[in-house]
Amino acid sequence: MSSSFGTLWRTTTFGESHGGGVGVVVDGCPPRLDLDVDAVQAQLDRRRPGQSPLATPRDEPDRVEILSGLENGATLGTPLAMLVRNRDQKPGDYEALRNIPRPSHADFTYQRKYGIRAASGGGRASARETIGRVAAGAVAEQWLAREYDTGIVAWVEAVGDVMTDGVDPATIDRAAVDTQLVRCPHAGAAARMTAAIEAARGDHDSVGGVVSCVCRGVPAGWGEPVFDKLEALLAHAMLSLPAVKGFEIGSGFAGAAMRGSAHNDAFVAGDRGLGTVTNRSGGVQGGISNGEHVVFRVAFKPPATVARTQRTADFDGNEVDLAAPGRHDPCVVPRAVPIVEAMAALVLADCALRQRARDRRSG
Amino acid sequence: MSSSFGTLWRTTTFGESHGGGVGVVVDGCPPRLDLDVDAVQAQLDRRRPGQSPLATPRDEPDRVEILSGLENGATLGTPLAMLVRNRDQKPGDYEALRNIPRPSHADFTYQRKYGIRAASGGGRASARETIGRVAAGAVAEQWLAREYDTGIVAWVEAVGDVMTDGVDPATIDRAAVDTQLVRCPHAGAAARMTAAIEAARGDHDSVGGVVSCVCRGVPAGWGEPVFDKLEALLAHAMLSLPAVKGFEIGSGFAGAAMRGSAHNDAFVAGDRGLGTVTNRSGGVQGGISNGEHVVFRVAFKPPATVARTQRTADFDGNEVDLAAPGRHDPCVVPRAVPIVEAMAALVLADCALRQRARDRRSG
Amino acid sequence: MSSSFGTLWRTTTFGESHGGGVGVVVDGCPPRLDLDVDAVQAQLDRRRPGQSPLATPRDEPDRVEILSGLENGATLGTPLAMLVRNRDQKPGDYEALRNIPRPSHADFTYQRKYGIRAASGGGRASARETIGRVAAGAVAEQWLAREYDTGIVAWVEAVGDVMTDGVDPATIDRAAVDTQLVRCPHAGAAARMTAAIEAARGDHDSVGGVVSCVCRGVPAGWGEPVFDKLEALLAHAMLSLPAVKGFEIGSGFAGAAMRGSAHNDAFVAGDRGLGTVTNRSGGVQGGISNGEHVVFRVAFKPPATVARTQRTADFDGNEVDLAAPGRHDPCVVPRAVPIVEAMAALVLADCALRQRARDRRSG
Amino acid sequence: MSSSFGTLWRTTTFGESHGGGVGVVVDGCPPRLDLDVDAVQAQLDRRRPGQSPLATPRDEPDRVEILSGLENGATLGTPLAMLVRNRDQKPGDYEALRNIPRPSHADFTYQRKYGIRAASGGGRASARETIGRVAAGAVAEQWLAREYDTGIVAWVEAVGDVMTDGVDPATIDRAAVDTQLVRCPHAGAAARMTAAIEAARGDHDSVGGVVSCVCRGVPAGWGEPVFDKLEALLAHAMLSLPAVKGFEIGSGFAGAAMRGSAHNDAFVAGDRGLGTVTNRSGGVQGGISNGEHVVFRVAFKPPATVARTQRTADFDGNEVDLAAPGRHDPCVVPRAVPIVEAMAALVLADCALRQRARDRRSG
Repeated sequence: MSSSFGTLWRTTTFGESHGGGVGVVVDGCPPRLDLDVDAVQAQLDRRRPGQSPLATPRDEPDRVEILSGLENGATLGTPLAMLVRNRDQKPGDYEALRNIPRPSHADFTYQRKYGIRAASGGGRASARETIGRVAAGAVAEQWLAREYDTGIVAWVEAVGDVMTDGVDPATIDRAAVDTQLVRCPHAGAAARMTAAIEAARGDHDSVGGVVSCVCRGVPAGWGEPVFDKLEALLAHAMLSLPAVKGFEIGSGFAGAAMRGSAHNDAFVAGDRGLGTVTNRSGGVQGGISNGEHVVFRVAFKPPATVARTQRTADFDGNEVDLAAPGRHDPCVVPRAVPIVEAMAALVLADCALRQRARDRRSG
Repeated sequence: MSSSFGTLWRTTTFGESHGGGVGVVVDGCPPRLDLDVDAVQAQLDRRRPGQSPLATPRDEPDRVEILSGLENGATLGTPLAMLVRNRDQKPGDYEALRNIPRPSHADFTYQRKYGIRAASGGGRASARETIGRVAAGAVAEQWLAREYDTGIVAWVEAVGDVMTDGVDPATIDRAAVDTQLVRCPHAGAAARMTAAIEAARGDHDSVGGVVSCVCRGVPAGWGEPVFDKLEALLAHAMLSLPAVKGFEIGSGFAGAAMRGSAHNDAFVAGDRGLGTVTNRSGGVQGGISNGEHVVFRVAFKPPATVARTQRTADFDGNEVDLAAPGRHDPCVVPRAVPIVEAMAALVLADCALRQRARDRRSG
Repeated sequence: MSSSFGTLWRTTTFGESHGGGVGVVVDGCPPRLDLDVDAVQAQLDRRRPGQSPLATPRDEPDRVEILSGLENGATLGTPLAMLVRNRDQKPGDYEALRNIPRPSHADFTYQRKYGIRAASGGGRASARETIGRVAAGAVAEQWLAREYDTGIVAWVEAVGDVMTDGVDPATIDRAAVDTQLVRCPHAGAAARMTAAIEAARGDHDSVGGVVSCVCRGVPAGWGEPVFDKLEALLAHAMLSLPAVKGFEIGSGFAGAAMRGSAHNDAFVAGDRGLGTVTNRSGGVQGGISNGEHVVFRVAFKPPATVARTQRTADFDGNEVDLAAPGRHDPCVVPRAVPIVEAMAALVLADCALRQRARDRRSG
Repeated sequence: MSSSFGTLWRTTTFGESHGGGVGVVVDGCPPRLDLDVDAVQAQLDRRRPGQSPLATPRDEPDRVEILSGLENGATLGTPLAMLVRNRDQKPGDYEALRNIPRPSHADFTYQRKYGIRAASGGGRASARETIGRVAAGAVAEQWLAREYDTGIVAWVEAVGDVMTDGVDPATIDRAAVDTQLVRCPHAGAAARMTAAIEAARGDHDSVGGVVSCVCRGVPAGWGEPVFDKLEALLAHAMLSLPAVKGFEIGSGFAGAAMRGSAHNDAFVAGDRGLGTVTNRSGGVQGGISNGEHVVFRVAFKPPATVARTQRTADFDGNEVDLAAPGRHDPCVVPRAVPIVEAMAALVLADCALRQRARDRRSG
């Protein structure tokens, strides 16, 4: 079941970076959702490489075709299959790498696990696999918005050691995020991040970063104790993304250094019942949403594929110098923004359905 | 399926902190494992409160009874049900809290999710729920040790802002960890951590911390792309634990600040085939183990239950002063060590079985 | 996952016929159900051997203990663990069978599958495993009755070649079924069935039979196309019972011999919207309940354990004469009645929850 | 998860009878299988309507395209996505049926379940959905043949009340089955079946039938007690097919009328260890294969769509006369043969993988 995610809102992706195409089957999307296919395409476009000088110039339209589950613009409640054809197939680019596993890439482990691997481009480990996730997530967020007025916004919190000046999770929106190509809404920080990316590119190198995400309008009661706590599902979702090395919710690692009296979120009466004065819990207590904003951060390592020469070994153990052919993104976090949003949407939609099943009156 | 974890090695826990008992059903443990029941009990004893002045004095024997799945000391391949009876039932302790949701605890969210909650002690959100996990994990680690010589060791990396001086994941063992009550193997750091815990207790407060864990002897090839990557399952497992707010593998959040050229783990020929010179990947590449040590860290927030008075609101929205009755652990991380080990074992055993299914010759 | 059943209403059984006990964990039962524990016990008592001269005299109280998930008589929404202790342990009875796999029993296949098997009494293949199912099903049927006024009644349709005179699925109830020890509500047929069982016993032999079941008050809309059609889940549930060799719904095998014009169920306006004039569909069309009675039949082979001598081979291939020691049920179908009801309840409760998740307004 | 089937060999189908196409994602097919795509196409061709005068003349090539998971003819171990485009779209044919639910079809129940339904042709309830199953099953049977020399053959056992003269499950092969268009290998019975189908067609009516299936070369040890017994999974698989009303394995319903002494399969030493003298168990004991042929039968009701006029009601409850437009198969069982084979293959492949996981030395 490794290519499926979710219990009731079930997302199954398929496709290598080369071959007929990549896509997704969404099983469990409720019926009678008037789907805005343009909005699905818009999230795919935000994910697409080649959007800016900051990203790889590989130009693929990534046009989504909906194969099933939709009629007259409305979902039927049956599997929604979506396909994006592959276009830019140059396996030759990778021929030289046939016997050299790229350091910190998945060549070595796929070969060891499967005894075979896609000849080129990373196969399922390619960022291209995330197309299916983004398409599915874009459907999920439309459903969440309609049913619960839930909204999800991610942004770039850090590139290398350049941090934002602080983004307010209560008010940030995608338009603000997209004012900057680097997807950090603060012009000043964005400029410094851009410089860091350009510097890495100039050094034929790459750089990591952090994406933050807020989910607003999450009702109290989502998340399934004890193993499918909301934060556990979010962590699972985020760590399933290529290049992710860390996840934290609310206070995260910083919270581990705190005292309980300083960390606790006191309750206070509010418009919609009890709320909390602070939100160090990140919107989740005991694995269940408490009605506050769900806020989390995701750490992305620097892309493993760098143009500068690396000393490493081939599959036979011989030392070699490797310089990756082609042109590559020096930093993935701007493009990761819609991917993080998509995975959050998939988690929330599944939690919503699971809670609904429990109690028709709640959820 | 919220109380079950795993695909082939499937662990289902049950039980509230009060009631007949807590326990677990392990479905999928292979047959013909000569189970060392004392070793299972030993891990439960490491988890138990009341082991030291650092922990809560609640004295429960937590003696495990194996109800099924075992005959003449060997597993039958059928469900292994294990039960620990509850003894120390004092619901009266919690009566005063009936209408006051404890800040940053699960009272409020359970009430909102289920429309009911256990009268006392946190119900399923209680740390006592982890007994089932520890018992199941102790079985899993015995099987992993026998089949793959895999070993798992966790330790306390930080208490509040006190860090270890650095623990070598290649050599640390449980005996070294247990030389210190605080379960940090370095006497100097352990003393400072103990002081931090005692200071928190003296202030009627609590303090958080970080647990690190290494899994040695993990063969290359475990983890299921794309959604059940090894790090995704580990993150899921760890974030499903009470009080956990963060997870990172390998370089983690620090890696996000690095350049690719500095982060990449170059390959080098070794005794058992290709290895890597460094291990910033934390033993996982592309979601699949690469044969190096799997190393990760888990952030625990400070316990929400503190004795000092907190200003908060009751369920009706009235402001109240709350001081938690009873005595509570000011810091959970020493006891969390065997729990982290258990969850790691459950993830690895499941991954091992899934990989075996794929290829009888590998895994 | 072989010992778990269901997606949202998830039932996990454990326990061998010998050992600490048998039981079940029900994960997914909604909260705030006022559980009638006596009614659970009553279904267990109907399942129990030793109820009548027709059944095995092994006298076990089979008293259920609820370990978790219940407080003040109401479900908490957390796992409901139920345990029945084993009492009557006489492994010595089975010692003689150690090297002889009983014909048409599970000794041989368990040994081949697991490389080990319970020393006695069939292990998980024992009818005693169904205790957990019956307890879980008794909870499910209480929830179904409260939420949907759904009711389930099974009865003995045939023993050997003795058939009922026809039972009306619209009106049959459990009280009528239980007027006869053989659980066929017609006194005449019941007498003939009893005679058939006594004749088999007199011949040191056993005899098979058929159990019919009706589920009334099943709303239209339950069942999940395309793989989890209602009839597919019912068939799965029934064929998972020991000794079952066949399942048919509605017209079943007889329907295969019919013409479409004679088989089709024409629609007609009724009190609660459209109904059908006939019910050859058995209450299910396209895998989804249509609001009519769900009616199905289950074929049980004759018990494999017979007292008369059988010529067979031991594990080493030597020909031997085997006569089963002890006393055994010559016919299981009277006791199978509550077991069939239980499995039907587990299927329906799961389908109800899955449909609720889809649409809060329906289900 | 309603459109997915299997635990480790996981098959997800998608697509309506109208729309972009129908297809399947196979997740869990092991790597390094040299896939014979022509053999996949051949099974699709056997399933296709319009093969003979006996079937509907709708002429669709149903050409399969493999979108992913395959490179240089070998499986990569990643999801195998297969797509068959829809061609013959005439929603107009169905416009007249918009407000009339066809008797014993899925129009009514889909509308009640989802509150919407595909405008035409049955949507997911269409036989066209089985294309994905057949493609996936054709892959599974290639893998089973390579790994275990397992072979699966189905045939038409009955059409209406015309039965075969008896087919030997030990020797029957697909070539023999396909010598007759009606897919009953006996010329005499086949002629009578053909006549029965032609008679039904002549009467603007339809007729049901029975498909038998044998799986040879199934090693002892497949099937997962207690809920995923081999026969339970087979029953689930078969009852998930459109129009199926019954399933029986081995002696089936006839076995329910037998005595145990006559029903039991005595063991006897054979070439490959213990075998059984008879096979009333149908190759399964205690839910686990015993190494004998797995033999089962599947009952298909007559197709609900008949050309002759039926008196029924529309959605508003008005009585109407309905005569189905277009041309339809009067009997589905000849085309059902490869579909039954496919579902059997999917069950067996999944069981094989699950058993392998348990024990590298067995399976």
